Amino acid sequence: MPRLVMKFGGTSVADLDRIRNVARHVEREVKAGYDVAVVVSAMAGKTNELVAWCREASMIHDAREYDAVVASGEQVTAGLLAIVLQSIGIPARSWQGWQIPIETSGAHGSARILGIDGSKISAHFEERREVAVVAGFQGVHAPTGRIATLGRGGSDTSAVALAAALEAERCDIYTDVDGVYTTDPRIVSKAKRLDKVSYEEMLEMASLGAKVLQVRSVELAMLYGVKTYVRSSFDDPTDPKPGTLICDEEDIVEQQTVTGIAYSKDEAQITLRRVADTPGVAASIFVPLADAAINVDMIIQVVSRDHATTDITFTVPAGDYARARTLLEELQPKIGYESLEGATDVVKVSAIGVGMRSHAGVAAKAFKALADKGVNIRAITTSEIKFSMLIDAAYTELAVRTLHSLYGLDAA
Amino acid sequence: MPRLVMKFGGTSVADLDRIRNVARHVEREVKAGYDVAVVVSAMAGKTNELVAWCREASMIHDAREYDAVVASGEQVTAGLLAIVLQSIGIPARSWQGWQIPIETSGAHGSARILGIDGSKISAHFEERREVAVVAGFQGVHAPTGRIATLGRGGSDTSAVALAAALEAERCDIYTDVDGVYTTDPRIVSKAKRLDKVSYEEMLEMASLGAKVLQVRSVELAMLYGVKTYVRSSFDDPTDPKPGTLICDEEDIVEQQTVTGIAYSKDEAQITLRRVADTPGVAASIFVPLADAAINVDMIIQVVSRDHATTDITFTVPAGDYARARTLLEELQPKIGYESLEGATDVVKVSAIGVGMRSHAGVAAKAFKALADKGVNIRAITTSEIKFSMLIDAAYTELAVRTLHSLYGLDAA
Repeated sequence: MPRLVMKFGGTSVADLDRIRNVARHVEREVKAGYDVAVVVSAMAGKTNELVAWCREASMIHDAREYDAVVASGEQVTAGLLAIVLQSIGIPARSWQGWQIPIETSGAHGSARILGIDGSKISAHFEERREVAVVAGFQGVHAPTGRIATLGRGGSDTSAVALAAALEAERCDIYTDVDGVYTTDPRIVSKAKRLDKVSYEEMLEMASLGAKVLQVRSVELAMLYGVKTYVRSSFDDPTDPKPGTLICDEEDIVEQQTVTGIAYSKDEAQITLRRVADTPGVAASIFVPLADAAINVDMIIQVVSRDHATTDITFTVPAGDYARARTLLEELQPKIGYESLEGATDVVKVSAIGVGMRSHAGVAAKAFKALADKGVNIRAITTSEIKFSMLIDAAYTELAVRTLHSLYGLDAA
Repeated sequence: MPRLVMKFGGTSVADLDRIRNVARHVEREVKAGYDVAVVVSAMAGKTNELVAWCREASMIHDAREYDAVVASGEQVTAGLLAIVLQSIGIPARSWQGWQIPIETSGAHGSARILGIDGSKISAHFEERREVAVVAGFQGVHAPTGRIATLGRGGSDTSAVALAAALEAERCDIYTDVDGVYTTDPRIVSKAKRLDKVSYEEMLEMASLGAKVLQVRSVELAMLYGVKTYVRSSFDDPTDPKPGTLICDEEDIVEQQTVTGIAYSKDEAQITLRRVADTPGVAASIFVPLADAAINVDMIIQVVSRDHATTDITFTVPAGDYARARTLLEELQPKIGYESLEGATDVVKVSAIGVGMRSHAGVAAKAFKALADKGVNIRAITTSEIKFSMLIDAAYTELAVRTLHSLYGLDAA
């Protein structure tokens, strides 16, 4: 029998009515002839409740204990869905991470999946066509035998990794939207659902702010070639609508130059004025930031008129802004800059498309279009298949709409 | 280091404030020099929530899935208590049943503990004096690797079994009362806390309606000679008050004839009128009831005046009453009785004491005292260390108070 992995997030299993709806989606695929593994998240709100208790227990807490507490949420959903499936005549059983096992690293709270043993689930498929209901977001760290969680959104990763281990035909990610859009439909009403998007593009979109899939799950899907289908859990289970298939570039016939426009508000800008323009000065700034695990993204260096000093601008995640500022202020005597300026009311707008590889001047068009609308670009980064611009947050919607139209993405 | 097992029930860990209070009790024992294993229940109300979800999922549900869902409650408490202990500087880690492992039978929902491997916890005691916080009420069924629960109240059993496996000096059961009383203080204001009670007496008390400990846990304590101490979790952790020690009869110097008066409302009476007085008739009644797993307790047979028929009266648990009635009505043609009468407004009042072994006429005094107060006794059973009387429920308090005074149990 061909195999299918289906994944349902927290809002899709928020209560028993929603879980019954999930069971009907599973039933449809079982009847279509698939052996099915379903990966589930905790019921919406449950993870937050468990996290709040851990914080109430102690603001500083052992990540291993946090994991033991928080992983219970998925365990509950898996058992409940197995019960509901059985009640409609579908053989099913729940699996916790340690029972499969899903082996992870020991980085509790943000563990990585090291390997999944698909043999037990496969045996149950073959012996009795039993649906495997798998608790997402968790595994076991083998050397200690303790439960480790993958961090928020980790259930997507669980699903894709399980699909790879089971050699599933596809991994269907059911979510509260019906697919991947050319941009955020809340900003651009003419945004279109994409039928297909390549792994590379999806990876950029996820990294650049599109929240539909977790970055790590897209990386895994690309690495193992898992066809991943994003679709809505709110459809009628007997008549589901199409979603977005994430697949190899070669499987996409009609390739656009630009596939989507993403934006991320999770940015902060730091500018160091009049830094001594000497060899090693960049290292004196960026090595300490890297050591503090602060991810620097865009970097611009502008040589000042006196040719002896330079201004250096770069971006860090908004959550690391305060920490980065404090660190650089402490290092001021060592780096030797004159002043530090920061801004958090900035946004990064990006255009993504594998077609950029073969088309020159794609980004240049954007710079001109935005300039025409009076949008000031603070920084730019580019890669083979995307370019990003840092702008004032107030211009976010204008910039996104301008680019969406510019690259012909508006729906007819 | 001597070892101690401490067990805290649902009301003792109902919220983070209560869990912090538990941590202070643990801290006191650690400072007193014990290596401590703490067994915890789910936070009060949590098990009911999880059970309600299972029922909402399906009224008929797979007991293995029910166990996977319900066992999560204790896991959460164990993790939270470990976090709180660490926050006050006490090394601690949580253990789920499968991690120890606590091996159980495959009777999901009411599994029996088959064995506990204390070696891992012992190693942590020896290496780092780390408190083991153990999720009660659960274990793992080794052949399937699935979580099995021991049924309601099973955390007491977890604690006593763990104390046996770890060769603990004592097992302290913290509860919402401060010990075992001569009778229910809500009925008899002069009821006294017992300093000590023998395993045999406690077993009878638990079986006969005293709810302070689960029967199975007392059986285990007796079997393995685990000194079990019932005490209050609501005491000031720095100044705890005495409780009741359950121990060998030999360890109790001043033995009373009667130690306690118990009562149970969980009784129903069935009388079959004019049953043919022929060999095998008793079997025709009680074998089918036994096959239906209905526990028959008291049995009285009264030969009628015509010497050809007999009236048979017996009791069953109130929860099995309807089922027993239906079964016997179906069997009427085969048994051949004339009529069936039932009563659920009955109560079983019992007096327990190992001193009865060496004192004659203990029960006879009770029959006379109750007759003097106009209490009609419907049925009587006796054993070596207890006797029980079935009476009308309306006389419960009167009978309990009469017996409590009669055997000199009233506090001065």
